[in-house]
Amino acid sequence: MQKKNFKELKINSLSVKKILTGFIKNETRKVGFKKVVVGLSGGVDSSVSTYLAAMAMGKENVTGIMMPYKTSSRESLEDAKKIVKKLGIRSLKIDITPMIDAYFRAFPEADNLRRGNKMARERMTILYDHSAKENALVLGTSNKTELLLGYGTLYGDTASAINPIGDLYKIQVRQLAKDLGVPKEIVEKKPSADLWLGQSDEEELGFSYEDVDRLLYYLIDKRYLDKELIKLGFDKDFIKKVIKKIQDSQFKRKLPIIAKISEKDYR
Amino acid sequence: MQKKNFKELKINSLSVKKILTGFIKNETRKVGFKKVVVGLSGGVDSSVSTYLAAMAMGKENVTGIMMPYKTSSRESLEDAKKIVKKLGIRSLKIDITPMIDAYFRAFPEADNLRRGNKMARERMTILYDHSAKENALVLGTSNKTELLLGYGTLYGDTASAINPIGDLYKIQVRQLAKDLGVPKEIVEKKPSADLWLGQSDEEELGFSYEDVDRLLYYLIDKRYLDKELIKLGFDKDFIKKVIKKIQDSQFKRKLPIIAKISEKDYR
Repeated sequence: MQKKNFKELKINSLSVKKILTGFIKNETRKVGFKKVVVGLSGGVDSSVSTYLAAMAMGKENVTGIMMPYKTSSRESLEDAKKIVKKLGIRSLKIDITPMIDAYFRAFPEADNLRRGNKMARERMTILYDHSAKENALVLGTSNKTELLLGYGTLYGDTASAINPIGDLYKIQVRQLAKDLGVPKEIVEKKPSADLWLGQSDEEELGFSYEDVDRLLYYLIDKRYLDKELIKLGFDKDFIKKVIKKIQDSQFKRKLPIIAKISEKDYR
Repeated sequence: MQKKNFKELKINSLSVKKILTGFIKNETRKVGFKKVVVGLSGGVDSSVSTYLAAMAMGKENVTGIMMPYKTSSRESLEDAKKIVKKLGIRSLKIDITPMIDAYFRAFPEADNLRRGNKMARERMTILYDHSAKENALVLGTSNKTELLLGYGTLYGDTASAINPIGDLYKIQVRQLAKDLGVPKEIVEKKPSADLWLGQSDEEELGFSYEDVDRLLYYLIDKRYLDKELIKLGFDKDFIKKVIKKIQDSQFKRKLPIIAKISEKDYR
């Protein structure tokens, strides 16, 4: 790989901030809502979404919900609380351990992946319950990298009403976070889904966000062909692996497939 | 309303059966799956989906999961068991009471709607957990009437990988059920989401499936205008009410809205 140069992925934070706060304002108003609820993990993605929402709608109209499991790191919760405090938004903490453990009591053999997905979906159900309770929309926190690679749980963390950061790559979210004033320790910490102690996104994926975001940019935004990507210095197997991830996760970016009987489409 | 005549909605069950079993076969194979899991409520919709799947893939490749809550009717469970027995499919019963009650212990004031939605979503999480466990796809059971009216839970019962009956109105599902040999008592019982004792879809909606299906047919499939609908004998307020339901539930038939920053779409 040639010397890393990420100028392709540089964003103009001021203009992006303007677009994204405008998006949140418009999309909530359009459907008659004045509030949002958001799941706060303590990570950079949910922090940025929450910052944008607080700027767009006012801190009194944003509720951050922290939903730790018993194995979630103490540090994640502390980081989430920092965001709440810094922005002055309303917040709530709901421990998902009783619901998750009640389920897996019948399936003690379940592996980490199944447990992690169940947790992500439990959190979704809680966010949607609170959105109904508070007459608020669920704010999404999935970035473009995750969505493209399918590195998220269908009907779990990828589910939302409106998602302000879904067209920003992970390292762009990080840049925006820095420019918005998200605490440095949150911006700089190792990305993790926090499903077990010491879990690391990049270890699990097998590559860094820097590398994959640059590849995705040329692949998706620039529509480069394999040979052009190789010329840029990307490894052949890396390209293959990433393309496979995008293809294998296509169903996560689509609606359920409905058998067609009648002539007209209705959605 | 003029004399009811539902010939517009009549289907050719033999040809529909062929299309829908072919759909299930193709859509599972295409993504490399040989099995499906389906939530069995004891109602006519999940019964028909399950019949079609058993015919398409073989009974050994279909797992029906019954997920009663403590207030679910005994009769619903018995009806679900009849389907399992008649088709000879694999089955599983998971009581969702512990997970649901663990959550609402913190929110005892929650109304029936919130509770019902949480249950529908809990069932989704269980179906998806078993789809991962068994390497199977989640089979959908929402009909066209429900999907159009938004009479279902987003990321709950409306979530699936493939849905064979999503383009059939409720009374068409009923006709197909009868022709497929679904037990008469299931075909003829009063439709209910079974969220509390004695709940009835038609009471809650304020109209019958017969009336609304016929209206939806002219509205959606035939693109009739209001005045044409009135000429057919439909009540003005009824038309208005149904159109409002379709419009208000549009978000349930769409993917999350993602703010656009880059030029290219990626999903």
